[in-house]
Amino acid sequence: MTEVIDQEHQTEIAALIRDIRDVMARNRLVEGLVDRAQENNHALVEKIVHKQNLTRLSKKLEKLHPADIAVILEALPHEERMAIWELVHSDIDGEVLLEVSDAVRESLLAAMDRDELVQVANNLDADELADLAPDLPEQIMQEVFTALPLADREKLKFALSYGEDTVGALMDFDLVTVRADVNIDVVLRYLRRMDNLPDHTDKLFVVDRYGQFEGVLHLKTLLLSDPDAEVSQVMARDVVRFHPEDKARNTADAFERYDLISAPVTDENNRLIGRVTVDAVVDFIREASDEERLAQVGLREEEDIFAPILKSVRNRAPWLAVNLVTALIASRVIGLFSGAIEQLVALAALMPIVAGMGGNVGNQTITMIVRELAFRQLGNDDIRLLYSKEMRIALINGLVWGFILGLITFLLYQGLALSAVMMAAVTLNFLTAALFGVTIPVVRMKLGRDPALGSSVLITAITDSGGFFIFLGLATLFLLR
Amino acid sequence: MTEVIDQEHQTEIAALIRDIRDVMARNRLVEGLVDRAQENNHALVEKIVHKQNLTRLSKKLEKLHPADIAVILEALPHEERMAIWELVHSDIDGEVLLEVSDAVRESLLAAMDRDELVQVANNLDADELADLAPDLPEQIMQEVFTALPLADREKLKFALSYGEDTVGALMDFDLVTVRADVNIDVVLRYLRRMDNLPDHTDKLFVVDRYGQFEGVLHLKTLLLSDPDAEVSQVMARDVVRFHPEDKARNTADAFERYDLISAPVTDENNRLIGRVTVDAVVDFIREASDEERLAQVGLREEEDIFAPILKSVRNRAPWLAVNLVTALIASRVIGLFSGAIEQLVALAALMPIVAGMGGNVGNQTITMIVRELAFRQLGNDDIRLLYSKEMRIALINGLVWGFILGLITFLLYQGLALSAVMMAAVTLNFLTAALFGVTIPVVRMKLGRDPALGSSVLITAITDSGGFFIFLGLATLFLLR
Repeated sequence: MTEVIDQEHQTEIAALIRDIRDVMARNRLVEGLVDRAQENNHALVEKIVHKQNLTRLSKKLEKLHPADIAVILEALPHEERMAIWELVHSDIDGEVLLEVSDAVRESLLAAMDRDELVQVANNLDADELADLAPDLPEQIMQEVFTALPLADREKLKFALSYGEDTVGALMDFDLVTVRADVNIDVVLRYLRRMDNLPDHTDKLFVVDRYGQFEGVLHLKTLLLSDPDAEVSQVMARDVVRFHPEDKARNTADAFERYDLISAPVTDENNRLIGRVTVDAVVDFIREASDEERLAQVGLREEEDIFAPILKSVRNRAPWLAVNLVTALIASRVIGLFSGAIEQLVALAALMPIVAGMGGNVGNQTITMIVRELAFRQLGNDDIRLLYSKEMRIALINGLVWGFILGLITFLLYQGLALSAVMMAAVTLNFLTAALFGVTIPVVRMKLGRDPALGSSVLITAITDSGGFFIFLGLATLFLLR
Repeated sequence: MTEVIDQEHQTEIAALIRDIRDVMARNRLVEGLVDRAQENNHALVEKIVHKQNLTRLSKKLEKLHPADIAVILEALPHEERMAIWELVHSDIDGEVLLEVSDAVRESLLAAMDRDELVQVANNLDADELADLAPDLPEQIMQEVFTALPLADREKLKFALSYGEDTVGALMDFDLVTVRADVNIDVVLRYLRRMDNLPDHTDKLFVVDRYGQFEGVLHLKTLLLSDPDAEVSQVMARDVVRFHPEDKARNTADAFERYDLISAPVTDENNRLIGRVTVDAVVDFIREASDEERLAQVGLREEEDIFAPILKSVRNRAPWLAVNLVTALIASRVIGLFSGAIEQLVALAALMPIVAGMGGNVGNQTITMIVRELAFRQLGNDDIRLLYSKEMRIALINGLVWGFILGLITFLLYQGLALSAVMMAAVTLNFLTAALFGVTIPVVRMKLGRDPALGSSVLITAITDSGGFFIFLGLATLFLLR
C-alpha cells in the first residue's frame, strides 16, 4: 500500500480524475432520464452500466495510496468529491483526511455522520488525532477522548497542549527504545520479534530504566556492529535533540542543516517523550512557505477553487480594507496639493512614477532583509551595516534612475526645472524606501513578530504617500509661485 | 562529527560569531599599534595574545559540523570571513563549500589558490563535485577531471549533463546494491564487513547481474526478516522511482506525498544509476522557495549583506527597468486625460485609489491561481470554473468596495456623478484584475512557463494603466463637457 510505481503514476491519476468526472457526468444524465421516464428501459440499462462504472472506480481507488486519493478528492467539485469519498474504504478515511488540504477536509468531515467520525478517530494515533482535532466537533472529540486508553489520552492531551508552530505539534510517539546495557545481538533478536518498525526509523532510542534519554543507536550502526558489542559501546551520545516548546521553524532549520531523518524530543528533565521525523518537517516547510505566500496578499486561509463564493469574498476582504485605508491616505496627500496640480497638470501624470518606483525599491530592500533575518540573528553591527549599505544602494539607484526619469520628463514636457524636481523626488523616495525597508522588518523582529508579515503592504503605503508628498511638495516649492 | 548537541547549540554558535568578531577587532587594533611603534612591548604582548586567541578559535571550529561553520562564515564580513576560512581544516573545506550560500562560496573560492582548489575537488564525490563545478575555474575542473578514475569521470560527466532542476542534478551515486537470490543472513554479513553505510540509507537496492533494477530491500525488512529468507521473498518490487530527466519539482512532490527517505533513479533501460535522498529534496524545496521569493521582486541572485554595493545595484536593476516602462505607460495614459484633470482636479487624487485596489485584487487572484496550478494540472472545465468564480468574486467585491469608495468620494467632494463614476470604475477595474489574474498564469502555464514568474509585475501594470484609463475615461464621458 505504501509503495507505488513510477512517475507515469501522475498521468494515471490525472486520467483517473477525468474518468471519475466522465462517469459522474453520465450519472447526472442518467438520473435526468430516469426522472423524466421512470419506466424507460434504456434509462435502467444506463443506470446498471453506471453502477458497474462505480464498482470499477472503487476497485481502482482501493489500490491507491491515501495521498493519491487526497489529490483526487482535491481535484473534484463538491458533488463528485462526495460521491468518491463514499467509495473510499473506511479503513483509510483517517489517513486521507490527514493528507487533504484544510478546505477539503472541512467539506469531507461535514459529510460524515457521528459513527463514521468516531470510527475514523479510533483508527488514528494520538499525534494524528491531535492534527485532526481542531476540525472535529467538540462532542465527538470528547467521546473519542473518553474511549482512549489512559496512555493515549495523556499523549493526545500532550500533543494538543502545544501550538501549531512548536516541536510539540510536529512530534509523534512512535519510539522504539532499547537499553544501553544489552548486546547488539539481543537488540537484533528483539527487533525480529516485532511485526514492523515505525516509518522513518533510522535510529533506536537508548533510555535508562527511568525513561531518561541516553543516546541513539543508528540502524546503520546496528547492522555494521559486532553482534557481541554492547549498545553502550556503539551508541551515539551527542545528538541533536529538541524540546516540545522549541520553535518548529528552528527545528526545520536543524533538520536541513544536519540532514536528519529523525530526532529525539526530551522534556526539561531529560526524559524521552517523542520524536520528530523528516516527513513532518517537510510538510511543515511546505505549509509555512504556502502560508507565507498567501499572507503576502493578505489571505488568511487557503480557498480551493470549489469553495463557495461568499467564503472567498470574506477571505479576501481584510487586505482590501487595509489597502482602502492606505490608498485614502495617499489620496489625501494628493488632495493637499490640488492647487499645484491645477497649475501644472503634468504633475498628475508624473507622480505615480515616483510612487511606484519607490515601492519597488522598498519591496526589494524588505525582501533582502527578511531573507537575512530568516538565516540568522542580526547584531547591532550588522544592522548598522545594513542601513548604510541599503542607503548607499538607494542613493546610487536613485541618482541613476532619477537621471533617466529626469531626461524622459524633459523630453515629454520640455521643463528643465520640472526634470530636476523629478530627479530629486525619485532619489529622495528611493532613500525613504530603503530607510523604511530596513526599519520595518528589523523593528518587527525586535518586537518578536514575523518580520515578513504585512511588510510589503506597509512599505508600499509609505512609498506611495511619501512619493506623492515629496514630488508634489518639491514641485510646490520650486516650480510654482 | 556529524552529531551535535541540543538546541542551545544555536546560541553557542551566535556567541562564537561574536567572539570571532571581537578577536578580529582586537587584531586590527593591535596591528595599528604595531605599525605605529614597532618596538612597543605592549603591542608585542597583545600580538601574542591574539595568536593565542586564534588558536583557541581554531580549536572551537574543529569541533563544529561543516554546516555550522558555513553559518559562521556567512555571518562574517569579508575580512573576518577570510581569516576564519584560513583556520578551517582543509579536510572539510569541500563540505563547507557545499553548505554555504552561492555568494559566500564565490568569495571563498576566490581566496583559494590552485593547489587548495585541486585538493578540495579531490576530496569530493562526483555528485558533490558537480554541484561545485559551475563556480570552479574551467582549468581546475579540467585538471581534476583528468585525475579522476574512469568510473568517477563518467559519473561526473553524467551529473553535469542534467539541468539544475532535474532529478539528474539532485541524485547521488552512493548505492548499496544486493542480489535477489541471496539470503538475508548473507546480506547482514556483507554489511558487517563494510566500514560504513552511505548517509540516508533506509533501503538497499536489488539489481540483477546486468545492473537492472529489480526492487528494494528496506533496512527495516532486513532487520525484521528471518535470516534464512531469500532477498527475493522479502524485497519490495513496486517502488517509487525516478528518471534522471524528471523534473526536480515533481520529485519533491512525490517525496512529500509518499514520505520517502531515498528512492532509486533508473535510466530508460531500467538500469539502476543512482538514488535521490530526502536531504537533497529538502535543500531543493528551500532553495526553490527562496528563489521564488527573490524573483517576485525581480532579484536574480542572492546577495548577502557583505556583498559589494555595485553588485547589489546591478542585481536590482532589471525590475526597476521593467517598472520604469510600466510606470511610463501608466503615466502616458494619465497624460491622455490631462484636459479632464485640469477641469476636475479631484480626479488626480482619486485615480491612484482605483489603480491600487485593482492591483490588490489582481495579486490575490494570481496568488490563488498559481497555488492551484502548483498542486495539479487544471483541465478546461476547471479553468472555466476559475474564470466564472473569480469574475463573480470580483463583481461582488467591486460593488461592495466601489460603494464604500463612492460614499467616501461623496463625503469628500459632494459630487453625486463623481461618486457614481468612482464606484463604476472600481467595479470595472476589479473585473479587469480578475480577468487578467486568471489569464496571465493560465497562459504562461499553457506555454510551459513558470506561471508565477513576473505575474505580479504584469498584473500590476495592467491594473494601473487599466484603472487610470477606466476612471479617467468614465469621468471624461460622464462628468465633463
